[in-house]
Parts: sequence; C-alpha cells; structure tokens
Amino acid sequence: MHDNKTWSGRFNEPVSELVKKYTGSIDFDKRLAKWDIDGSLAHAEMLKRVGVLSEQDLAAIQQGMAEIIEDIKSGNIEWSLDLEDVHMNIERRLTDKIGDAGKRLHTGRSRNDQVATDIRLWLRDEITIIQDLIKALQASLLDLAEQNVDVVMPGFTHLQVAQPVSFGHHMLAYVEMLGRDFERMVDCRKRVNRMPLGAAALAGTTYPIDRSITAELLGFEQICQNSLDAVSDRDFAIEFTAAASLVMVHLSRLSEELILWMSPRVGFIDIADRFCTGSSIMPQKKNPDVPELVRGKTGRVVGHLMGMIVLMKSQPLAYNKDNQEDKEPLFDTVDTLVDTLRIYADMMRGVTVKADNMRAAVMQGFAMATDLADYLVKKGMPFRDSHEVVARAVRFADDKGVDLSELAFADLAQFSDLIAEDVFEHLTPEGALNARNHIGGTAPVQVRTQIARWREVIA
Amino acid sequence: MHDNKTWSGRFNEPVSELVKKYTGSIDFDKRLAKWDIDGSLAHAEMLKRVGVLSEQDLAAIQQGMAEIIEDIKSGNIEWSLDLEDVHMNIERRLTDKIGDAGKRLHTGRSRNDQVATDIRLWLRDEITIIQDLIKALQASLLDLAEQNVDVVMPGFTHLQVAQPVSFGHHMLAYVEMLGRDFERMVDCRKRVNRMPLGAAALAGTTYPIDRSITAELLGFEQICQNSLDAVSDRDFAIEFTAAASLVMVHLSRLSEELILWMSPRVGFIDIADRFCTGSSIMPQKKNPDVPELVRGKTGRVVGHLMGMIVLMKSQPLAYNKDNQEDKEPLFDTVDTLVDTLRIYADMMRGVTVKADNMRAAVMQGFAMATDLADYLVKKGMPFRDSHEVVARAVRFADDKGVDLSELAFADLAQFSDLIAEDVFEHLTPEGALNARNHIGGTAPVQVRTQIARWREVIA
Amino acid sequence: MHDNKTWSGRFNEPVSELVKKYTGSIDFDKRLAKWDIDGSLAHAEMLKRVGVLSEQDLAAIQQGMAEIIEDIKSGNIEWSLDLEDVHMNIERRLTDKIGDAGKRLHTGRSRNDQVATDIRLWLRDEITIIQDLIKALQASLLDLAEQNVDVVMPGFTHLQVAQPVSFGHHMLAYVEMLGRDFERMVDCRKRVNRMPLGAAALAGTTYPIDRSITAELLGFEQICQNSLDAVSDRDFAIEFTAAASLVMVHLSRLSEELILWMSPRVGFIDIADRFCTGSSIMPQKKNPDVPELVRGKTGRVVGHLMGMIVLMKSQPLAYNKDNQEDKEPLFDTVDTLVDTLRIYADMMRGVTVKADNMRAAVMQGFAMATDLADYLVKKGMPFRDSHEVVARAVRFADDKGVDLSELAFADLAQFSDLIAEDVFEHLTPEGALNARNHIGGTAPVQVRTQIARWREVIA
Amino acid sequence: MHDNKTWSGRFNEPVSELVKKYTGSIDFDKRLAKWDIDGSLAHAEMLKRVGVLSEQDLAAIQQGMAEIIEDIKSGNIEWSLDLEDVHMNIERRLTDKIGDAGKRLHTGRSRNDQVATDIRLWLRDEITIIQDLIKALQASLLDLAEQNVDVVMPGFTHLQVAQPVSFGHHMLAYVEMLGRDFERMVDCRKRVNRMPLGAAALAGTTYPIDRSITAELLGFEQICQNSLDAVSDRDFAIEFTAAASLVMVHLSRLSEELILWMSPRVGFIDIADRFCTGSSIMPQKKNPDVPELVRGKTGRVVGHLMGMIVLMKSQPLAYNKDNQEDKEPLFDTVDTLVDTLRIYADMMRGVTVKADNMRAAVMQGFAMATDLADYLVKKGMPFRDSHEVVARAVRFADDKGVDLSELAFADLAQFSDLIAEDVFEHLTPEGALNARNHIGGTAPVQVRTQIARWREVIA
Repeated sequence: MHDNKTWSGRFNEPVSELVKKYTGSIDFDKRLAKWDIDGSLAHAEMLKRVGVLSEQDLAAIQQGMAEIIEDIKSGNIEWSLDLEDVHMNIERRLTDKIGDAGKRLHTGRSRNDQVATDIRLWLRDEITIIQDLIKALQASLLDLAEQNVDVVMPGFTHLQVAQPVSFGHHMLAYVEMLGRDFERMVDCRKRVNRMPLGAAALAGTTYPIDRSITAELLGFEQICQNSLDAVSDRDFAIEFTAAASLVMVHLSRLSEELILWMSPRVGFIDIADRFCTGSSIMPQKKNPDVPELVRGKTGRVVGHLMGMIVLMKSQPLAYNKDNQEDKEPLFDTVDTLVDTLRIYADMMRGVTVKADNMRAAVMQGFAMATDLADYLVKKGMPFRDSHEVVARAVRFADDKGVDLSELAFADLAQFSDLIAEDVFEHLTPEGALNARNHIGGTAPVQVRTQIARWREVIA
Repeated sequence: MHDNKTWSGRFNEPVSELVKKYTGSIDFDKRLAKWDIDGSLAHAEMLKRVGVLSEQDLAAIQQGMAEIIEDIKSGNIEWSLDLEDVHMNIERRLTDKIGDAGKRLHTGRSRNDQVATDIRLWLRDEITIIQDLIKALQASLLDLAEQNVDVVMPGFTHLQVAQPVSFGHHMLAYVEMLGRDFERMVDCRKRVNRMPLGAAALAGTTYPIDRSITAELLGFEQICQNSLDAVSDRDFAIEFTAAASLVMVHLSRLSEELILWMSPRVGFIDIADRFCTGSSIMPQKKNPDVPELVRGKTGRVVGHLMGMIVLMKSQPLAYNKDNQEDKEPLFDTVDTLVDTLRIYADMMRGVTVKADNMRAAVMQGFAMATDLADYLVKKGMPFRDSHEVVARAVRFADDKGVDLSELAFADLAQFSDLIAEDVFEHLTPEGALNARNHIGGTAPVQVRTQIARWREVIA
Repeated sequence: MHDNKTWSGRFNEPVSELVKKYTGSIDFDKRLAKWDIDGSLAHAEMLKRVGVLSEQDLAAIQQGMAEIIEDIKSGNIEWSLDLEDVHMNIERRLTDKIGDAGKRLHTGRSRNDQVATDIRLWLRDEITIIQDLIKALQASLLDLAEQNVDVVMPGFTHLQVAQPVSFGHHMLAYVEMLGRDFERMVDCRKRVNRMPLGAAALAGTTYPIDRSITAELLGFEQICQNSLDAVSDRDFAIEFTAAASLVMVHLSRLSEELILWMSPRVGFIDIADRFCTGSSIMPQKKNPDVPELVRGKTGRVVGHLMGMIVLMKSQPLAYNKDNQEDKEPLFDTVDTLVDTLRIYADMMRGVTVKADNMRAAVMQGFAMATDLADYLVKKGMPFRDSHEVVARAVRFADDKGVDLSELAFADLAQFSDLIAEDVFEHLTPEGALNARNHIGGTAPVQVRTQIARWREVIA
Repeated sequence: MHDNKTWSGRFNEPVSELVKKYTGSIDFDKRLAKWDIDGSLAHAEMLKRVGVLSEQDLAAIQQGMAEIIEDIKSGNIEWSLDLEDVHMNIERRLTDKIGDAGKRLHTGRSRNDQVATDIRLWLRDEITIIQDLIKALQASLLDLAEQNVDVVMPGFTHLQVAQPVSFGHHMLAYVEMLGRDFERMVDCRKRVNRMPLGAAALAGTTYPIDRSITAELLGFEQICQNSLDAVSDRDFAIEFTAAASLVMVHLSRLSEELILWMSPRVGFIDIADRFCTGSSIMPQKKNPDVPELVRGKTGRVVGHLMGMIVLMKSQPLAYNKDNQEDKEPLFDTVDTLVDTLRIYADMMRGVTVKADNMRAAVMQGFAMATDLADYLVKKGMPFRDSHEVVARAVRFADDKGVDLSELAFADLAQFSDLIAEDVFEHLTPEGALNARNHIGGTAPVQVRTQIARWREVIA
C-alpha cells in the first residue's frame, strides 16, 4: 500500500500544500454532509439488494453512518483538508469506525456521480424552503394590499404621474411577479430532482446496479438517462440561479420603490425602526438599510449566475475539476435568497402607509387627464382627437399651476363643446379608480377579487 | 390641433432630431408589424363586440389593415422615424387610409400594453420554431449516434482518458441536454403566452373591455391579472434568454469537442468541406469555422441575458422607457439561436467519424484500469484496496510504456494473488463497454435503447 | 486554378449558403474599409522599401486604392457575401482594377494580423472622438454647476435627507466621474495603439519585413512584440468596453437622479420639451425619455462587456474564428457611447433648476442636525455624546412636525446646557453650506474653485 | 442617553436580530482592521495639528490603538455583530480603553469616508502584492521559455496546425498578456490611491480639517476633490475587478492549453505529480486539477465584476447601503487572484516539455505549406497564385497520407515549373522557424532577444 502521503500508488510525490488548499473543497462542501450520507445509505441499500454488498456490511455501514450523523450534530468532527472534500472525509471516518465494510461502500459509484447527487438532493430541499418563503412574502404583501385597497396613490410611468391606482393594486403587482417566481421554482425543481447516481465516473459501472431502487429510496422523480451527461450537467444550478436572479430583480424593484417612497420629499410610507439604522455622524438619519441591501444583493446573485455560465462555457465532457466551482456561488445564492425572502416578509409588515401624502401626490400631475379624454370619446370624439384636446387643456392648467379638476368650468369648456358640467365627476381620483373595472384593472372591487384569488392560490 | 411638429399640444417645441434618432425604435421594431396588426385586429373586434366600436368602423379597420399587410409584403411602405415606432407608423397609415375609424382603434389601450402584447405574440411564435429546430438537431445527433453505437472512443474526465465509451453514447449526452432545453422552452412559453392587452397605460381602462375575448382571439392561454405588472413585466424575455443561453452553452461544449476532435493530433473526426473555410495565407488550412463561431456566439447570447437583467434591475413600476431596450437583444438572441440550431443540425450530418483513431486513443491512457479494479473487487477485495493495487500496476505499465492489457501475465499477477489468466478478457475496450450495462450506461445495448426512446420522444 | 466555387484547390465542395451567411462578416465589418485601406497602403509602402514590392506595383496599388476610396464615398461599391469580409472584398476589387500587383499586396501578412490592425486603427480614432465628447459633457455640466453654485439642495444618503449641498457641487461629482472615465480612455488608448501587423497568420513571415516602418506610417506608438499574442489579443476591446461600461454606469446614476428630480412630487428640475415625449393615451404626460433610455442602454453596453469576456474565456492560442464575434459588440458599444455622450451634453443644457423646491426639501429632513452636533462639540462635548443629544432633539422636533430651526429656544435648550441663542445661526441651509469649507467640501467658494480647476483641465 | 438597545435616541425600538445579521458586515470587514486603524491614526494626528484634538487626546488614541493592534494580533478580540462593522467595533473598544478621547476620534469624519478610505488603503497594498506576483509568474514563464527556445511545436489557428513555432515563443505570448495586466494594475492603482477621507458623510465637515496632512500621512497621491463623489465612487473596485478578470481570462487560456497538451493523445507536456490528484474510482488517473480550477475560477472573478456593475447601476448619490455589497466580491477577487498567481508560478516550474511529441505533431498538418507558397513568391509568382498552387499540392499529399516534405520531387514539381530541388530546404520545421526572423517573429534568435528584454523589464 502507498504511504498515505501521495495521492495513490500511481503518484511519486505528495500534493503540495498550496495545491491542497487551492483544490480542497471541504471548507464549503461540508454543508452537504447530511445529503451525502443520505445518498450513501441509499446506495448501500441498493448494493445489498442486488447482491453486491452483504447484509452485515450494510448493517455496519448504517451503524457507522448513524454515529457520524451524531458526531456532526454534536460538533464532534474534525473536517480534514488532507481528505479534500466532504465525501472522502465521511468515507474515511466510516472506514475508521467499521473497517473493510466502509471500503466497500464506494463500489459501483464515483465521486463524480456522488457529488452530483448530493448537490441535487440538497438543492431540492432548499427549493422547497424557498417556495414556502415566496408564499410567506406573498401573504405579507396581500395583507398590506388588503389594508390599503382604497388608498389612492399616483400610478407612475416614466416616474411621471400617470393615472391614479390603488395602493393595494400596486402591491399585487409584486404578488404576481412572485407568483411567476414560484412557478419557475416548480419548473426548475423538476429538473433538479433527477438522479445522476449510477453514472459512476462517467460511463456507468460494471456492477449489476439497479438505479430505480436508489431513485425510489431517495425520492427522485426521474433517473438521468445518460451517464456522461449525468456527471457533467450543471444546467439545474444555472437554471435555479437564473430563477433566483429574477426573484432578486423583482425585489430590487420593490426596494427601489420603498426607498423612494420613504424619502421625506415623497413621504408615501414609513418603515418601522427595527428595520432601519442611523448614521455615525448625522443624528437625524433613519435609513432604509434592508431594501438598500436587497437592491445591492441583486448584483451578488446576478454575479453568481454570470460566473456559473462562464464556468460551463466550452467545457468538454465529461466531469472536469472546473465544476467544483459551482458550489460556492450556488450556496451563496440560496443563502442570500432565503435570508432576503425571510426579512422581506417581515419588513413589509412594518410598512406604514401615509395615505394623505399619496392622495396629495395624485393631485400634482394631472392624473385624471386620460379620464377627461375618455369622457370626450364617450361623447363621440375619436380618441386621437380627444387626446390632443386634453393635451392643450393640461398645458393651460399647468400654466395656471392647478389641476384640471381645479379649473373653472368655463375655462375647461373652452377646449371642447362636448364638455358639460358632469365632467368634474370624472376628474376625482376615486372616480378614476372605480372606472377601471375589468380583470386586472385598478378598481377596488377588482383588487379585492384578486386578493381573494391569491389567498386561495397560496393556501 | 397642434401642428404635427411638437409631440402634442402639451409641448412647446418639437423633439430634437438627435433625440428622435436616439429614442426611435422603428428601425428594429418594424419586424413586429405582423403581430402588431394581429393584436390591433383582435382589439378592434373586441371593442365592437362590447359596443365601443361600430360595425362600420371595425370593417374599415379590417379593410385598412388588410391593405397595410399587402403594402408590407410588397415592400410598398416607408417606415418613418418621425412616427417613432411600429405602432404609430401603422396607426398613422391606417388613419391616412380610413380616417376617423383609424383614430378610434387606440380606444381603451396604450402603447404600453400594445407593445407588450406584440412582443409576446412574436416570441411565442419564435419559440415554436425553436422547439422544432431543437428536435431537428436531436434527430441529426440521433442519426450520428445510431451509425456509431459500436464505435469505441476514450471517455474523458479532466481531458484525461477515463474509461471507454461508445461514440453513440457520447452523442446522446447532447441529446439529453437539448431535451432539457426543449423542456425549458415549453415552460417558458407558458409564461410568454399570457396577455397584457387591456392593462392600457398601467391601470386598466375606463372602457367596458372584455379581455377574455381578445385573449381567445389571439390564442393566449392566460390573461395578465394585474395591469401594473402587465406593462412592466419583462420576465418572459429574461427567462427566454436564460434558456437560450443554456442552449448556446451546450452547443459551445459540443463545439469545443468538435474543434478538438478535428485537430490533426487528435484526429477523431472530420467535418465536411462545405462547413469549413481556409486561410488567406496558409494554403493547407481547413478550419472548423462553424463550431468556432457557435462557441463565440455563446458570448453574444449570454451578453444579451446580462444586458436585460441590468436593464430591469431597480426599475420602479410601471412602464419606463428603459424597457424599449429589451427588443434588440431579444431579437438578436432569437436570430442567433435559430441560425445556430439550423446550421448545427446540418453540420452534424457532415461529420465523419474516424473510428480507428478513436480506438487507438483508448489504448493510450489505461482506460481499462477501473475494470481491473472491479475484477479484483468481484474476487473479494474491498474497492479501496483494489484501487490502490491497480494504481501501482498502472505505474508499472506506464514506466514500461505499455497498456495494462499488454503486460505479461506474470508482471500483472505480481500485484495481487487474485489475478488469474481470465483477467485479460476484462481489459479490452469492447469488454469494458459491454460491462456497463444498466440504465444510462455506455453498453451498446443500452445506447440503442436510449436512441429508440428518443426517437419516440421527438416523433 | 480552382473554379472559384470552392474555397481553394484544397477543398472538394463549395461552402454552403447557410454557412456563408453564418460566417460572413461583410455586413458589419465593411465599416472598417477606410482603416483597412490605410493599413494596406502602409503595408505596401513598407514592402516596397524593403524590396519585396516593386515601385510600379506600389504605384498601382496606391492608384487602385484611391479609386476604391472614391467608389466607397460615392456608394459605388457592392459588398459581396461570397468574399466573406471587408478585406477580401477590397483585395478582390483591387485585383480586378490592377491585376497581379493586387495579388502581391497580401505578401507577408495574413487576415489575422490585418483585421487586428484595422480594428485597432479604427478604435484609436473612436477613442479620440469619445475623449472630446467626454470633455464636452463635462463643459456642459460645468456651465450648469456654475449657474447654480448657490442653489441649495438636500444632499442625500440612503435617499434620506443628509446635509445641505450646493447643486453646483452635486453636478461636480459627475464631472469628477467623467474625469476618471477620461483617464481610463487615455490609459486604454495606449494599449489600443500598438501594431499587430507583421504577425502574419501567427508566427511572423518569411519576408524581410520592417515593422517599424509600418508602425511609423500608421502612427502606432508600439509594436506588438509577440506574433501569437498579436493575432489573438482582444484585451484592448475588453478593456475599452469595461471603461465604456463605467461611463454608462455613471450616466445611469445621473439619469436616475434626473428622472427622480423631474417626478412632480420631487419637482427639483424640468427638462426641455425637445428631450421629452408624451404618451399615446395620457395627454398630460411629458416623459424624460432620454435619461430613461440612457439608464436602459447601460445594460446594453454591460452586456457587450460580458459577451466579450465569455468569448475570450478558455480560448487556446492563436487566432480562432470565435474572435470574429468581437466586432459587433465593440461597434455597438462605440456607437451607443458616442450617441449617449452627445445627447447628454445637449440635454444638460436643457435642464431648468427649480431652486425653491430644492430649498423647501432641505427643510423636510433635519438637514442641519449634524451642524447642531458639531456646535455642541465645539463647545466641548465629545462627538459621540453630541450625536446622541441631537438624536433626541430630532425625535422631539419630528413629533412636533417641525424642523430643528423651527423649535423654540427653550425647547431646544432643554437637550443641553451648552445650547445658547447663537445656535440658530448654525441651523440655516446657507450656514451649513458655507461651513463645509475645505478641499472637496460643498461651500460655494470651494465649488467655484473646483469649477475653475476643471475649466483648465478640459481646456 | 439612550439605553444602548436602540440605534440612537432617535429610534423607538431596537434593530431586529434578523436585520442585524442581514446588514452587519463585521464578519467580512474585520479584515480591514489594520487599515482602519492606520486611517484613524492619521485622522487623529491631523485633527491635533489643526487644533481640533488636544495633544493628550491624541496620545491616548495612539496608545489605545497600539493596544488594539496587539489585541488583534494575539487574537484577543471579540468582534461583535451588535456593533455592525469593523469601524464601530474598534471605536467602541477604543472608548472602553481610553474614555472620552475615543469619542472624539470620529470628529470631522463619517463612516462613509472612513470605509472608503479603508478599502482603498487595503486594495492599494494588495495591488502591490499582485504586481509582484505577476512578475514572479512572468519570471517562471521566461525560465520555461528559455529552456525551450529551440523546441518546435505546431502553432495552431482554429486548433488546426498552422505553422511551426518555438515553444519558447508560445510561452512569451503569455508573458506579453501578463505584461499588459501589470500595466493595467499600475494604471488602476493610480485611481485607487486617492483619498476620500475628509468627505465626511457626503458634504465635507464644519471642522477646519486639512486633508493634505492626512493624505501625506497615509501616502495618498491625490485627494478626492468632490465630497459627494468621494463617498459614492466605487469605480476603483470595478476597474480593479475588470483588470483582475482579464488576468484570469489569460490564465484560463493558458490553462486550456495545458489541459489539452497533457491529454494523452496530444502528449505535449506533463505536469508534476504534486500539482495533480487522482480519481476515487479510476486508479490510472492523474488529473491537471490546478489549471482546471483556474479555468473554473475565471467565472468566479467575472461574476464578481458583473455583480459590482449591477450594484452600482442607477444608484443615486451619495452613499447608499447597497455599497456595502462591494466588499465581499472585492475581497474574494483579490484572494482568488493572489492564490492563482502564486500557484501558477509554482506549477509552471513543474511542467515537463515533451519535445519529440511536439515535433511529431508539426509533421501531422502540413505546417510548412506557407513556406512553399513563399518559396514560389520569391521565385516571382504572385502570392494569391502560389497560395492556390500549394493548396492543390496539399490535397495531393493529403490523399497520399504524407507531408509535403515527404513527397517525391517529381510529384511536387508537377504543381509548378518554379519548384526546384532546393525546395526541400524550406520544408523543415527548423527552416520554417528560422525564416520568421523579425521583431515578434518566432525565429529562435528573436525569441532570445525577447526573453532578454523581458528579464530587464521585470528586474
């Protein structure tokens, strides 16, 4: 036997210390220990069922692994860089505990399919957690929406006042985005939940393995049907990170709005003190740290997506060491997403809506101009013409520094013979809100319907 | 009315020429004309059914649009930058043809929901084309795989010889990747095929529209349920581009391999002359231009993905002009993907496999070492021990410059008492291939099963 | 000779039409024609001086090229996809005009070093233009700054009111950013302005070329010292695009602010009508299209940067066809940057500052709280203690809904014995502004000094 | 005073635990402690010189900081998440040690300019280290080049054999790339080495600070001239990461080649065992882990670049909490780059060149075809015609399965009357090498000149 200093009897010098540190992954892949053991136990069970492993060996492996799980739980384990990664660390510990049976565990598999299995098992569980967190955030947004269905705020396009919208309606836009994010997690999870185990190094194995047994034991929905693909595929990690990037992009948008809305000049909302911090120099400051950091962390997750795509670009088959670099960005993506979703659901419950300021803002940008145009259309004017009539009326009011609704009737009427006294009924924020009464429109009755629908979806 | 020089009666000076050029989109969005008209016709039909538009107006619009379609087909149309985009160009042309009815078409909608509808209708159709092209490429790969099931090549990990694999098996790895790409297109298409029309500018409209009518006329599966989200959502474009990036990453991997395999020193394949070009200076050159360009164009598509994510990051609701920048990268992504899939399916039919060189390469890297280790395990040695025994045997053979199968029995037997004369049966490439006989393994019988399965899937 | 249908006598079938289209670059690289001809003329001149080309051949080439330049200017040229690229198109045209002398032009060079030379010559010229445009934008910002040195606005951190700043000072922050952008262009240009010509295909040439002659004729500062590197280096393109990305990121920040400032609720500025457009449905709208698009186009340029990095990752030496994909993103980066800088300089001259609104906003966020803390420090209290005292005063004022300066003296004095009647002098925006009087501070006198300094720098 | 549970007296509830963890940075920014203290000491010294701080206070601060440095060195410090970041941790510890003098240290500065100063001081030092490591890698490559100047290998374009090159010449291509990388570090360092300290929160400070004193004490070359820009500028971090990305892209290219060259079929090099590891299943494997991981880690660094650009896109002035997210990617970029450069210099000394295999490969791709074309040109044939003549000769030889140099004279002579018996002198690899004898060419005499030049440059 070799002396345990070189990698194996094929090598004539040990791995340099610098290389050990550079290539070792135990520092970060130890978090896979639970799933690595799950995979090993299923593999061993299968080996026994097909007759490759004896009943005694299986029992020893199960016993040894149970002890290792306890060791990990109690922190009674020293992860060794000399053993490179979580797989070798656990296997060595097992062999130390149970002898030859431990050495037989790796029969018919390779680290290539083992690590691919671990990471999928782990990610599958994380996605389940993320799906629940997405729903929890949706629930938080729905509560806020429900409390503010009748609060009218300026809807913006180009950050210019466009038309009045319900604040509840605005919140529902994010519920929709998160709904798509949830769907993408579902779709991605299908492709995560496929089993590479059995691909061995790259070509399969000479042992009479039965992959359907391991797949069933581990709860995989499908089996990867090509061994070369099974060990080199990292699509699932990229797809997940792309889906995570979209969640973060959505939250960067909401964050941008919260920050803007909390700026004193705008004054639409306040965020509870427990989510804010102050300044080391400016005693008056109360900063919306959380949404700012969420906005910033979007870059972090998008960076991981980019990094993983660069990683896979032009890689020849099958497994290459490059792939080890998939783990840290994937772990950090999951951690960032989980923390962000959790804190966001919490924080949205600390948002105070300042309805008066929102309503005041509606009156600062001719939000009901479209309603005037529509009024004229309903009296027979083609839309393109009414648009032009109102444009001139707006300019007139703007010069006077008042809203359309604040113009004298005579002033307004000069722009078209079709304008009658009833026009002012159409020029209130509430009137404008209620008038947009169809699927997806901002009328409070529609908003309430949507809230009810979403409550059921996430139930 | 305003003088047609300023944007509307609200503006006191015309848009500067520089701005017109900078903000105009007609140069690239004119390709949406067909879908813009489809959307307008459905909108008009709906307006008529709910009583907002008269039957005569609808008939006029239908007649006018039919003429415009003919104008476009015959190239008899001048797209005007003064009219900004495809929507305004078509509407103005319509109004020129049919008068006031044309001005009524825009009732109850906005360019914001209109453009969002157009781009989804267009992308939906493109995805259908892409799905067919993915299948065509899979078919091409399946043909090549089938012709070469029994061709043995070295399977690589770390670009070192690992174990023998069937060339057909190697091709199937890419069929699997493309299979997932196809699934992602299906999943993405669901989210593309939802109708924003009816969101109007951002809040819905005051007209009694019935969005289910338009959705049915246009073949949308769902209706966007929140108007703010409907006009500002570009998830579908990002999700599609992420899926397209993965297709390109897969093809960059195959391209890398083709280029490597065609390098004279490797000599595994040749690519037909019609897919290659020469050098302006080196008369002997025949370069694999197509796979090289595909590898390069991966950057292009990934760049578009990143660009679109940057575009959406931190955008407040609802529509902002930034969003206009989604079109060019999306168009170019579709064009690049369509062209690449098409040329790839064609090119793979021009690949000649050099089986002799592949087999020779199998003998250059101790490809059957694992088989020797498995042989020992089957005779009772724990795997970890047999691994070490073979490592030392490999080192011995390497020093002699021969393959394990070329060692004298006596030389080999010195490494373990368990080695008997029958060992050499396990040290042939064909033996190694056939021994990996389980789902996903490289045994030719498994490869043929997979080919048959895929033939059915893509039928 | 071969029949002109196949690539050369080495090929047995012509390039397929699909491949021609996929691999041809003439559609986009024709814009390099001018620089291609410049390079060819210098190459020919050098060949003559070292005796490889006869005087007559040189004269013929010069004459032929002069005609081609005229042909291009007058649009009297048909670019052919059959000839792949701009180099072959021009060479073929030259040979058609002058015969064998044209065929001798390519002696001692290859398309690999030729295209690398063209693109560097072109980019060098574009950087010069960009440098001028950066200065022009700085000049425009300096003018706006100078007109508004004494305008006080709230300086924000976390979009919360922090301390009063001069609007001129705020503008100067962007002048600084652009100053660094200018430096980066200077640094990058050094590395662009190096000559690959003479590297030939990848190894140099067997002809007795003198690269110093061509370098001098073409104005290159240095000669690429390694032929393999010369034809495969695309650093300069990536470095330039990274520098361009930073310019765009800076302008995305200014754009974000302009959009925010022009939002009616904030109301800090207006942008002249000629830079804005309206809405197809909302007659009152005047949208800041230009800054929005600039913000959006940031994604475009960043996408190109990422695309080019992906392109180069893991490319083996020397030239690969992948590299052809550097051109379109580079061209588009230059075009986007040039257009954006030009329009921005113009637009900033159309910005109207609403000083009253800015000053009102200063009073809405306790902007002088730090001044009160500093006041206490100057009376002997440690800063950390004064910070706490003021924090409590702010909370008191906030509950009353007034600014610190609006509190009664008695109310204020209760927070510390050190507070005397003179405190109110320190609680005005102008006082706060003037108090920050050191290099880089916001005191108007400092701002004027900086403006004067920058005027000289860009002179 | 407030009760230390809330952020300050302005807050009515303490920061939630989740928020503390989400927003705290002490876990990663503690590595800045040394530079934070350097900055604080210079700030205190300056405050004393301008009369803001007493001599005694300064002495106390210096004494306290000296103790803290010792505490850190001896690991005798507990970093507290409650104190958010490294700045607050150190300041609190200082105050615990020396009382009120500690509370006075923060006079005239803010965490905003403090952290910006820390990170620049730190990065400046790291760049110096990186510059040395780049030179060390260049030295390693120069040694390898020098030992192998006369080793002839096939130069590739499109991974097809192009022309013979010296292996030393090939190594020098990477020396050139690294030379540019070094230049970029120099250029970037200029912009890193500018002092934001004195910008305070965003607007400067009311204390009579003298920034030239602190700048001189800290060795800054310039002072940031605009306070708003000073606290919000992260250009230097992005520029550095872009430069680092290019280093990694270069090393990804060399890694790709090393991996390819070590593949048994190619067999150009071997890498010493201490840089390789084996397989858990395949006993014969010796994998080039280091270059593979370097190739993979390229994605990591590029991802960080992307993340930081996304971070800064559209951020309004001045400091926002988003910016905290610049640190982790920057730290990891530096660590990855430092480790990679270090291990690479080491590893290149463990590369064994297999000259025989390289020479054999030269004979497998008609590498001297260009030399034959040049031979004909020198006898009077225009280059384009000789190119075609040789193309046909190559096809003839290819059909026979031999190199041009292995054809009978009569066979070769049939392609042109200009071919004489002396032709074979031009068809040897060494002849081809020596013939490319000009600046940048592959002739060994040129390669030696370049090696000597570089030895001087990096001396």
